[in-house]
Amino acid sequence: MVSGSSLTSTSTPSISLLKDELDIVIPTIRNLDFLEMWRPFFQPYHLIIVQDGDPSKTIRVPDGFDYKLYNRNDINRILGPKAACISFKDSACRCFGYLISKKKYIFTIDDDCFVAKDPSGKEINALEQHIKNLLSPSTPFFFNTLYDPYREGADFVRGYPFSLREGVQTAVSHGLWLNIPDYDAPTQLVKPLERNKRYVDAVLTVPMGTLFPMCGMNLAFNRELIGPAMYFGLMGDGQPIGRYDDMWAGWCMKVICDHLGLGVKTGLPYIWHSKASNPFVNLKKEYKGIYWQEELIPFFQTAVLPKECTTVQTCYLELSKLVKAKLGKMDDYFNKLADAMVTWIEAWDELNPSENPGSTAAVKPNGAAKGK
Amino acid sequence: MVSGSSLTSTSTPSISLLKDELDIVIPTIRNLDFLEMWRPFFQPYHLIIVQDGDPSKTIRVPDGFDYKLYNRNDINRILGPKAACISFKDSACRCFGYLISKKKYIFTIDDDCFVAKDPSGKEINALEQHIKNLLSPSTPFFFNTLYDPYREGADFVRGYPFSLREGVQTAVSHGLWLNIPDYDAPTQLVKPLERNKRYVDAVLTVPMGTLFPMCGMNLAFNRELIGPAMYFGLMGDGQPIGRYDDMWAGWCMKVICDHLGLGVKTGLPYIWHSKASNPFVNLKKEYKGIYWQEELIPFFQTAVLPKECTTVQTCYLELSKLVKAKLGKMDDYFNKLADAMVTWIEAWDELNPSENPGSTAAVKPNGAAKGK
Repeated sequence: MVSGSSLTSTSTPSISLLKDELDIVIPTIRNLDFLEMWRPFFQPYHLIIVQDGDPSKTIRVPDGFDYKLYNRNDINRILGPKAACISFKDSACRCFGYLISKKKYIFTIDDDCFVAKDPSGKEINALEQHIKNLLSPSTPFFFNTLYDPYREGADFVRGYPFSLREGVQTAVSHGLWLNIPDYDAPTQLVKPLERNKRYVDAVLTVPMGTLFPMCGMNLAFNRELIGPAMYFGLMGDGQPIGRYDDMWAGWCMKVICDHLGLGVKTGLPYIWHSKASNPFVNLKKEYKGIYWQEELIPFFQTAVLPKECTTVQTCYLELSKLVKAKLGKMDDYFNKLADAMVTWIEAWDELNPSENPGSTAAVKPNGAAKGK
Repeated sequence: MVSGSSLTSTSTPSISLLKDELDIVIPTIRNLDFLEMWRPFFQPYHLIIVQDGDPSKTIRVPDGFDYKLYNRNDINRILGPKAACISFKDSACRCFGYLISKKKYIFTIDDDCFVAKDPSGKEINALEQHIKNLLSPSTPFFFNTLYDPYREGADFVRGYPFSLREGVQTAVSHGLWLNIPDYDAPTQLVKPLERNKRYVDAVLTVPMGTLFPMCGMNLAFNRELIGPAMYFGLMGDGQPIGRYDDMWAGWCMKVICDHLGLGVKTGLPYIWHSKASNPFVNLKKEYKGIYWQEELIPFFQTAVLPKECTTVQTCYLELSKLVKAKLGKMDDYFNKLADAMVTWIEAWDELNPSENPGSTAAVKPNGAAKGK
């Protein structure tokens, strides 16, 4: 485990929201030169770097950042046999960072993501926007046509029930990408030159009962509220699929948020996604997932968690049973994944002993109560 | 009934989409000078003007528009006793225009709405955007994080099931408003100076199972697909509430679209809403609705239509029974409203005899099939 902490405060912004309550998690296989561009925004925060691949390789981190770097040897040492639930040679390994963090909030970003500019040309402080999203409520039970009602210059429109205007706690903030859009391999192959140039100035709550494709490139969440659901699955080395790590986490997380009455937002902030990954390599990683997801979506759309499940951990364990019961017959991979989900929760509870699974995220399940 | 048709084509745009398949419905009590600003966009289309209030008053329509104007005497003459289902002294009267139209598409707009400009300063052809929205599919079963996947420069993102990428037919396009936002009376009172200045460059499908507040100010729909559900209820003169006409229609419509597997979009286009209505007058109209809507939303969220209902008409009649059974006890108004809903369908079928209620909108209900 490598640490760095020669904090220089020359170019830090005047306000660093939640400086002591948020970790930035970065999975990587290369030198982290991309951090230079993020320096004004990230330097006040602690970074958790999860080194994927060959642990003997040295990853260079620019001077002045406060970080801890974990390679595969560290993961194996810390988790012991439970390390088997952490993927290798896949960015899914990032979820180890969520496990090892002790902070309330997590922001995770890929190392090919740079600072984007808004239409006025101003550099976007993605982290600040994520924090705003997480600190203001969500509105999953009814759609507001002027988008985020808590934003300056906006509100709830006529016809929005007053009893729902308090909103619910926000668990997840899903940010977007300018330049290279997050397309699957078939779409990449068909539209190799497509770039996302549209800046949509909106943040919105993904409604209750609605699933969405959560991308792990530019993502923040309240670890205390939803952390144990943010498992990125078994991907990469030795596994039949890749590039479904964030999707899997997103679907599990959304079902649990809907059950517990927690909110999920998507939209701002944008980052600048610099390079498209190789579509041929991606196709090889994805093709089983492309087939399987046709079964996975109906599975998650119809998954019902018992009312007795009032913590993220108990919800997640229940979901793992459903995965085994209903998806195991599609492919044995899902039996292994279901077991890994259990291991993940065991690892979570081991590394986070102060959290009493019986009391964390003690929000009452209001999925059923809200008439869905 | 007054007609005008001295069509001059001096300032018409080069392409007039669906010129012979769309009517523009405008409810009004005043001279329609606002049409001057819309001339380049509206002049190729037929207007249905529904004159509210005193039928002896003459409404002036600018020269060069092709229109028919219906006042209360016309409505009474055409509908006979069934005219009782059409509201008086409330913009809810606009739904008479949907009934009398023979076109496939309807665009309806308020007479205090003007042409808005996009961030580049270009005047927005709201009607053209609505037509684009209606002619491209909707995606109600899964949320696409890059918004409308059919728009130029966008697509479905990684993780979006391929089986859902064909989408479903779009029934409704709900447009937004710059300047004066569509707030209820309490919000108007609290924020008298708030103006909507945020241009959000997005169109999105309101997900299945999610209700939203549909505003009638800037709205388009496929009359063939969903027309009979677009009843604006009993409001205004002699009724205990106002300003819930479009909300009522929107909730009924959304439940039926979800049942029949039809899509509803919201977002672009913007119009410029010029003046705020009087919040004190609005409060008087709204206050019962503000109370009642707390019951109405759970009612619509849990309303289930039988699988046998495969047309809009049969769905709507079924909904009227549910209204009577479940809302009648809250206030006798809902018994009257339920009866008016039946009268509306009778009037619709009488004026649209070529539509066979057994075959119109012959889309198979796929609410249940999609895992709700």
